[in-house]
Amino acid sequence: MLNRRWSLIARPRGLPTAEHLRLVEDELRPPAEGELVLRNLYLSLDPATRKRMDEAEGYLPAIPLGGTPTTTVLAEVIESRHPDFRGGEFVTSFGDWAEHSVVGVNAMTARIAPTPEIPFTRHLSVLGITGMTAYFGLLACGEPKFGETVLISAASGAVGSLVGQIAKLHGCRAVGIVGTELKRRRVIEEFGFDDAVVHQGRDISTLAEHIRKACPQGVDICFENVGGTPLDASLLIINGGARIVLCGLIAGYNSGRSQGCQNLWQVIARSASMKGFLVKDYLHRRDEALEPLSRWLAAGDLKVREHIEAGIENVPTAFSKLFDGSNDGKLIVALRPEMVNPDGSVEHLTMRGG
Amino acid sequence: MLNRRWSLIARPRGLPTAEHLRLVEDELRPPAEGELVLRNLYLSLDPATRKRMDEAEGYLPAIPLGGTPTTTVLAEVIESRHPDFRGGEFVTSFGDWAEHSVVGVNAMTARIAPTPEIPFTRHLSVLGITGMTAYFGLLACGEPKFGETVLISAASGAVGSLVGQIAKLHGCRAVGIVGTELKRRRVIEEFGFDDAVVHQGRDISTLAEHIRKACPQGVDICFENVGGTPLDASLLIINGGARIVLCGLIAGYNSGRSQGCQNLWQVIARSASMKGFLVKDYLHRRDEALEPLSRWLAAGDLKVREHIEAGIENVPTAFSKLFDGSNDGKLIVALRPEMVNPDGSVEHLTMRGG
Repeated sequence: MLNRRWSLIARPRGLPTAEHLRLVEDELRPPAEGELVLRNLYLSLDPATRKRMDEAEGYLPAIPLGGTPTTTVLAEVIESRHPDFRGGEFVTSFGDWAEHSVVGVNAMTARIAPTPEIPFTRHLSVLGITGMTAYFGLLACGEPKFGETVLISAASGAVGSLVGQIAKLHGCRAVGIVGTELKRRRVIEEFGFDDAVVHQGRDISTLAEHIRKACPQGVDICFENVGGTPLDASLLIINGGARIVLCGLIAGYNSGRSQGCQNLWQVIARSASMKGFLVKDYLHRRDEALEPLSRWLAAGDLKVREHIEAGIENVPTAFSKLFDGSNDGKLIVALRPEMVNPDGSVEHLTMRGG
Repeated sequence: MLNRRWSLIARPRGLPTAEHLRLVEDELRPPAEGELVLRNLYLSLDPATRKRMDEAEGYLPAIPLGGTPTTTVLAEVIESRHPDFRGGEFVTSFGDWAEHSVVGVNAMTARIAPTPEIPFTRHLSVLGITGMTAYFGLLACGEPKFGETVLISAASGAVGSLVGQIAKLHGCRAVGIVGTELKRRRVIEEFGFDDAVVHQGRDISTLAEHIRKACPQGVDICFENVGGTPLDASLLIINGGARIVLCGLIAGYNSGRSQGCQNLWQVIARSASMKGFLVKDYLHRRDEALEPLSRWLAAGDLKVREHIEAGIENVPTAFSKLFDGSNDGKLIVALRPEMVNPDGSVEHLTMRGG
């Protein structure tokens, strides 16, 4: 079977462009024992994929040259060589920037039972890895207590917007750091944050002053998606015993090397801790998160915004929006618009966000 | 009573010199209710004092201009306005770079019962804050398990040399990062580390290769005293779930701003955690550490090296040795050589190290 897939042909320095990624068509390899062949319906686009386009450093595995960038996919099983799955079932899975993926079954693999009440793409956002990241990152890694202040960078993003809402549902003050005034208003008015500050164009100490005003009781938890200036400014406002959940460091992913942080001494001075968070460590507890997330979603307590683009050929263009901040919610690419809802209903794609 | 003290007259950019510190003589203020007047016998010189010479950033309190740098002192109480202490007793306490200190009583204050068997200055090294830092930093903050690998920066220093020995006593592999070949041999031959690597003159990736060779099972705990290149190299070799005990970041204390670290993304990639460690959070558990430390010391299981200089006028010169690495053990300044041992015995100061 012929398969169109994106191939990494050179390692980018900044944003990947046509120099680095090429849409190629080649034969799909046959599945080995225990593997599934997937027809990808939707691709989730995530910042971490950029990091994996770099040369491997330390233990982070790199995408090999000629290989396909990987991500989370929402897909139909078209062939199964695994006893627990059958053709025609829907799954979310680790998969490729491609029309089809041949994958093993692991903790990332989850069977999806489509229902008319839940837009199908929710399984890539609030009910998928994005929701798991927000839920376990905040609650299991950050361990918020009632009344604490949670500061969230990239607060209008897919994960950040959920973290703030879950923090509010647990009696915390939620304050966002965002790139633009539009996003500042959105996290307050749409996602219900208590306050938010804009980081663009501000240096560390000016941003820190703004954060201090928005967090009169200081900061107990930083949910960090960005790194760089937002992280360094946040570190100046943390309370004793603060927890910094390191979920992502998107600020450094397109620079030659990661920015890290300068104000690490504040972690000592405030007896704080920085905890690296990988959602894969929590996926065996998926059901523990799915129950409350589904309940909050049904009750209207969680607002979810999805930004859906269409077509395999548009994946790199869509991906670049993660880095200039022009995406407008959880970024998803629909590969088969005619199959938007598995119950047969078809919606106009641009209606699906929000 | 007249008192000679060091006064911070300007904020240094690099090492403090005669431009920044002046020895002044002025009247000692009278003690308030609850305070003690101390005659300082020995001053401990510690890297963190340098950080406090900077303008306050965040919550780290700065030494005010005109104020006296503070440290841990081993002193005789010459006047007590606190019911638990009497004149003539010996204490370790938070105190000043000065001949006398007027201090409150807090968790830092500990009564010392001198015995002829224990050289008096041990109460500023292995049985003092230095020993508490190594003991609680490694065991309570780092939580080593039998057979794990502990990597220690500034491994020949006062804290680092104890951390490695305590790690060995707990069945761990202890590997040091040091500045020179002389120190490398010392941590292996004198302090019993399993291996050590020299960081001077090496970039991050070269140093990381050397660490990898010395740590064939990877690194489970980094006991970090330095920051900068040693920390960034260590982060490339950490195992999943590693704990980085942030005890000090001396590499950045003399630069305009702290170096922090670049490879923070490794903390995410390895689900590691960086834990800020302040010994003051553990001083209420002092006895829990004193018992094993005293026992190991008496049994000859802990080697202790002290570098003792003499005279209040030599404090800044001695202090600078912490930053060029030329001190040769726990750095202490003896202010009253004629009172070296409270039992009346007098030793030549240069005999007291080792």
